Amino acid sequence: MKQYITLDPWSIVEDGFHRQYNEVTESLMSLGNGRMGQRGNFEEKFSGPTLQGNYVAGVYYPDKTRVGWWKNGYPAYFAKVLNAANWIGIDVDIEYESLDLNQCEVRDFRRVLNMQEGYLERSFVAVLKSGKMVQVSVKRFCSIVDDEAGAIRYAITPLNFDAKITVTPYIDGDIRNRDANYDETFWDEVRKETGYGEAYIELRTRKTGFHVATGMAVEIEQDGVKIDYQSQPIKYEKYVANRMTLDCQQGQETAIYKYAVNLSSLNYDPDTIIQEARKAIQHISRKGFDRMLFEQKQAWADKWKMNDIVIAGDIAAQQGIRFNIFQLNQTYTGEDERLNIGPKGFTGEKYGGSTYWDTEAYCLPFYLSTADQKVARNLLVYRYKQLGKAIENAQKLGFRAGAALYPMVTMNGEECHNEWEITFEEIHRNGAIAYAIYDYVRYTGDERYLVEYGLEVLIAISRFWSQRVNWSKVKKQYVMLGVTGPNEYENNVNNNWYTNYIAAWTLRYTIQAVEIVKTLDPEKYAELIDRLHFREDKEIEKAQHIVDNMYLPQDEERGIFLQQEGFLDKDLMTVSEIPKGQRPINQNWSWDRILRSCFIKQADVLQGLYFFEDEFDTETMRRNYSFYEPMTVHESSLSPCVHSVQASKLGMKEKAYEMYLRTARLDLDDYNNDTEDGCHITSMAGTWLAVIKGFGGLRVENDQLSLSPYCPDNWQSLAFKIRFRGALLEITTTQQDIRVHNFSNSPVTIRVHGEDVTVAAKSQKSVMTPVAA
Amino acid sequence: MKQYITLDPWSIVEDGFHRQYNEVTESLMSLGNGRMGQRGNFEEKFSGPTLQGNYVAGVYYPDKTRVGWWKNGYPAYFAKVLNAANWIGIDVDIEYESLDLNQCEVRDFRRVLNMQEGYLERSFVAVLKSGKMVQVSVKRFCSIVDDEAGAIRYAITPLNFDAKITVTPYIDGDIRNRDANYDETFWDEVRKETGYGEAYIELRTRKTGFHVATGMAVEIEQDGVKIDYQSQPIKYEKYVANRMTLDCQQGQETAIYKYAVNLSSLNYDPDTIIQEARKAIQHISRKGFDRMLFEQKQAWADKWKMNDIVIAGDIAAQQGIRFNIFQLNQTYTGEDERLNIGPKGFTGEKYGGSTYWDTEAYCLPFYLSTADQKVARNLLVYRYKQLGKAIENAQKLGFRAGAALYPMVTMNGEECHNEWEITFEEIHRNGAIAYAIYDYVRYTGDERYLVEYGLEVLIAISRFWSQRVNWSKVKKQYVMLGVTGPNEYENNVNNNWYTNYIAAWTLRYTIQAVEIVKTLDPEKYAELIDRLHFREDKEIEKAQHIVDNMYLPQDEERGIFLQQEGFLDKDLMTVSEIPKGQRPINQNWSWDRILRSCFIKQADVLQGLYFFEDEFDTETMRRNYSFYEPMTVHESSLSPCVHSVQASKLGMKEKAYEMYLRTARLDLDDYNNDTEDGCHITSMAGTWLAVIKGFGGLRVENDQLSLSPYCPDNWQSLAFKIRFRGALLEITTTQQDIRVHNFSNSPVTIRVHGEDVTVAAKSQKSVMTPVAA
Repeated sequence: MKQYITLDPWSIVEDGFHRQYNEVTESLMSLGNGRMGQRGNFEEKFSGPTLQGNYVAGVYYPDKTRVGWWKNGYPAYFAKVLNAANWIGIDVDIEYESLDLNQCEVRDFRRVLNMQEGYLERSFVAVLKSGKMVQVSVKRFCSIVDDEAGAIRYAITPLNFDAKITVTPYIDGDIRNRDANYDETFWDEVRKETGYGEAYIELRTRKTGFHVATGMAVEIEQDGVKIDYQSQPIKYEKYVANRMTLDCQQGQETAIYKYAVNLSSLNYDPDTIIQEARKAIQHISRKGFDRMLFEQKQAWADKWKMNDIVIAGDIAAQQGIRFNIFQLNQTYTGEDERLNIGPKGFTGEKYGGSTYWDTEAYCLPFYLSTADQKVARNLLVYRYKQLGKAIENAQKLGFRAGAALYPMVTMNGEECHNEWEITFEEIHRNGAIAYAIYDYVRYTGDERYLVEYGLEVLIAISRFWSQRVNWSKVKKQYVMLGVTGPNEYENNVNNNWYTNYIAAWTLRYTIQAVEIVKTLDPEKYAELIDRLHFREDKEIEKAQHIVDNMYLPQDEERGIFLQQEGFLDKDLMTVSEIPKGQRPINQNWSWDRILRSCFIKQADVLQGLYFFEDEFDTETMRRNYSFYEPMTVHESSLSPCVHSVQASKLGMKEKAYEMYLRTARLDLDDYNNDTEDGCHITSMAGTWLAVIKGFGGLRVENDQLSLSPYCPDNWQSLAFKIRFRGALLEITTTQQDIRVHNFSNSPVTIRVHGEDVTVAAKSQKSVMTPVAA
Repeated sequence: MKQYITLDPWSIVEDGFHRQYNEVTESLMSLGNGRMGQRGNFEEKFSGPTLQGNYVAGVYYPDKTRVGWWKNGYPAYFAKVLNAANWIGIDVDIEYESLDLNQCEVRDFRRVLNMQEGYLERSFVAVLKSGKMVQVSVKRFCSIVDDEAGAIRYAITPLNFDAKITVTPYIDGDIRNRDANYDETFWDEVRKETGYGEAYIELRTRKTGFHVATGMAVEIEQDGVKIDYQSQPIKYEKYVANRMTLDCQQGQETAIYKYAVNLSSLNYDPDTIIQEARKAIQHISRKGFDRMLFEQKQAWADKWKMNDIVIAGDIAAQQGIRFNIFQLNQTYTGEDERLNIGPKGFTGEKYGGSTYWDTEAYCLPFYLSTADQKVARNLLVYRYKQLGKAIENAQKLGFRAGAALYPMVTMNGEECHNEWEITFEEIHRNGAIAYAIYDYVRYTGDERYLVEYGLEVLIAISRFWSQRVNWSKVKKQYVMLGVTGPNEYENNVNNNWYTNYIAAWTLRYTIQAVEIVKTLDPEKYAELIDRLHFREDKEIEKAQHIVDNMYLPQDEERGIFLQQEGFLDKDLMTVSEIPKGQRPINQNWSWDRILRSCFIKQADVLQGLYFFEDEFDTETMRRNYSFYEPMTVHESSLSPCVHSVQASKLGMKEKAYEMYLRTARLDLDDYNNDTEDGCHITSMAGTWLAVIKGFGGLRVENDQLSLSPYCPDNWQSLAFKIRFRGALLEITTTQQDIRVHNFSNSPVTIRVHGEDVTVAAKSQKSVMTPVAA
């Protein structure tokens, strides 16, 4: 735990320079606009600890994998998020001294991520070794309006001298990934150009051949007036810059405006990409910094209007939830169906791949409730487009006839991960992808999606499950051997309840989806089954047989489901019995000891009860929760949120709040001591779930929105907005009452704590909380 | 399968140069004397495919491990067998041409490993690009008399020219391991010296600091007469040589004698090691090549007198078994208790480590029956000396109070391997180490060993098992969760029958051993329990409770033991059902598919029935054999031998012979297409087991030797020698009768096919085979 970030409802504030935590702060203060992003690095040189990081969405490199012992079926390459050209750099030389906060005295340092308005601000006074003092103030943002652009205002004021100051705004493409497996360089230079105050560079990724053109233009103001300057162009290998020497007077502010763009060949023809970059630079520099920033603030205000969650009476919780929402919005806007939600977003490069089951299991609900329906739809279409690769992936493992296994980690649909117990066995991910289709259709009512895309994916996943189970002559039921469930502290188990359940559920839902599509669009259905060689009778009969005969381990005596067969053979303990100083166990125990223990990394049976809560009564859920939660160490960032949601449902308010706290400030307080690698983006959606599905009790039942909101005891109020099928609602709950504000043009009927409440168009209504009542 | 090696009862013969298989031949033709060894490389330059390999016993390097995903408890280093200075090199330049068999026409090439006399012979005619023809004949050996020395006679005869021939005998220490994880160099130079026809170099290994001094002396003969020559010393980085230019006449043989020694700081003080090398060189060059070779032949004759197995009527089988015996003798002589039997011996460097459970489970019986008792004893003492490290290893995994887990792979006692499913879970190896103690005492009657060393090891291993099991409240028995049995095509299973059985057996034997030691030497016993903090009552009570309550999975209906819990849930198939072209499955199936299949890599339940056959009736063995053998793919070199032994016992002669063939010529025919990496040394002991325990039916029962010999149908006779408690016996079996020759000075009574047979001193006796009778 680190607690150097100042509590503030709307900003992430570093007051005073925390050099030793700089890489953590850089992660927290990352900027992004869904298309490009970067860590909260300094513009000027910095010789202290830093991970310089700039990332362009969808641009990746297949790094040769490193394994200890090769297993057949492992992928040869791991698609890495690529650290791309650094476009923020501005070297500052004051006569013979470089400005470097690691080499001078730093006073009045303050770095602020303004989440409300979407920019990063930094100011400090540097006392150079010569005694010269200089005041620097910086504002920077990645525009969500011009989403290939960013802009910087870098202002320097000499405090106790007049001098020539040389500034060198540059683009540096000579970048390596910190986590490259063999220290390779991933970028080649294609071309570069410089002009008056301008510079462009086009780089191409090795192997994948993505082109990225990065351009910059520089303007300089003194005393608020734009000035002309002498610009000396510089070109090195993979590097372009302009150097300009400026006369600066004591007390006079010199502001360097740096406009930059990143265009990738995902969107442009490589032949003309440099010209396009030039046009984009012209567009934004004509617009100017102030206008761009104004538009940025407006756009963020619009986002917050849809997304914000307001917590009164708990500033740490307020800051936490806003930070989570802000980073999610920076990472993924849903406008491009080729993109997805990387585990680190634009805040770091560890892990690689951009797509995990996190997207379907944790992130989708956030986008469903807070963004246009097409955003969630694009997340589904992303997987649809990778179906071919998922089928190839299953073929590599020996499956056939159109069976699909979606990868554990991917960028382009190919599997990246290479631990056999994960890559080959953590196959429940396939179920989450089916579940997301169900979740989307349930929330939006968009059954056409099944016709266009959904059913094809469901059939392929169901074919996988049908082949992956086998008939046990002993049990006279279907079993699923050799899997890893969501709890990765167990590997290669037989009959993981969650996996078996979601497999059977997928088959069941596919049978339903077949009926829906057949009814909705018989022609399309006919086309589809023909194209997929779907032998309806035979495949459905098999599927139904599996559904009816799937083995689901349970313990009658305790009335619980068994995480896997044989779980009760373990030495059952609770987390409270782990000796002090031995947590997290993944940093203190051998892997062997962890595997043999009963301790659970993240929700497993409970993940199933969370997904499929409609299929179980509350007492069953309570028994399972009471059995498993005390054994859960929550050493995955995705664990506490699911527990928080269920604790809320079960009326365990204290537990729900405890679990909420574990997820909401995970990165801000660097709970797992790893935020320096980047933020845990996907678990941020989990935080949102803890609030909206947990405290808010949001569900969709029979095409109707249902809520059961309550406030944790120490909160005065909780307010959040929800989009549902065209309507925009705000729910505000206090300890006493619940107000529903309907911003739509039509009345809306929702269930609140089990009672139908109709709220007229553009009005609000208040109901008492059951407790207060 | 490759079948280019000529069948011959006593030699491995390559007739004609098989360039494409050169690395395979190099492995097969490896030389060794237990202390040093080398692959069958050429002395002169060779630019074709070759793995130049020289190895010095006990000298290793802890190479930094390479893993994909780190798991807590993994070792940071992997002790690699070190490729050491090349001392065989002799560059030959004929005027302006280098002799290089890859750059000239090669005629009449013949390379022969003479196993009877222990040397490697090679002859060829090279036709150089200039048309010059030169005849070369080479003899080389690693002396088993002077076991730090080797000698070469390299004879050149110009066939169609007179010329000056320059020869450069050298020692090259600038060597890298082919399998270095990060392409590092493992050797540093310490010093080097050259003199007239002499050169010495001392190298030191990085990290481990082993010193190895390698020396050479050169003599030259023409027309059978030693000549003087001009010697030009050469010193490069890690390289010393003498260059000499010789007038050679057409038809005249010039013989270069190269004497070499390798001394390591395992045996010498590094300060004087170079002087010692000089002394050793003087010693052997004074002795001279012919004398050395004569002694070598004598010494090998002595070995064969003890070790030979004679098969009449099956030359391939004869060659196979002799090759296995020869390589075993080259690898390990048992004279140094710090050494062990590396998986590749001195024939290659793959895998690393020198000690696997193979030593105890497969190799020990060979040395027990064919060598002095101290050889087998030294193998046990080796593990005793590493007990401290085994305790540390267990501590790393969370065990305590003196529990020991011996490593899967090691050089110095520390674990090298890093796959969690092997390193942490394939713990049955611990049982094999206990079993070897039992096996040794049973064979030799040397119960004092338990007093001196054995009990201490047994207590430590038993402590491990006592902690590794846990009480299952469901089963009301002890269970062992998360293990990998000998069948590595299953990982992380619960209640592997073999592991559970050997764990309980170890506890049982430890309790017996306590009684034996207590009776034999109460004083030592008191000392021991004090030193080990052995709480006799408590620990034995616990051990007995585990013995009495260990869960051992079985299927009542089939009357078989279950390889692991849940095995019958699998889709049970036989190997014959695997589609054609998909074997070996480990080269054709994904790891996932292998794990989920029922197919067995090597004996698992059957390994237990092999070890503990006295505890099961024949029908139980037969049922288990019939159930498991058809599912076994024998993709471990250690599998067929165990099956062969049991098939013999069960009277399944054809199966026994089929399995024998799979093990005996594994390397000679390059069965698994991997002999180029080196020979499978430890499985060679398995071949011996298949003959002696299988066809020979050798057992020890109640301090008495018991035999049930028979000949496979296509053999005329099988003869082998056995040492047993001071006696030397030769057993010869034909299809008709069995002759027992007693070479000892006292009469010996053994059981033959269940009947006591007494053979007088220095005489023989014949009995009919039961079948013939």
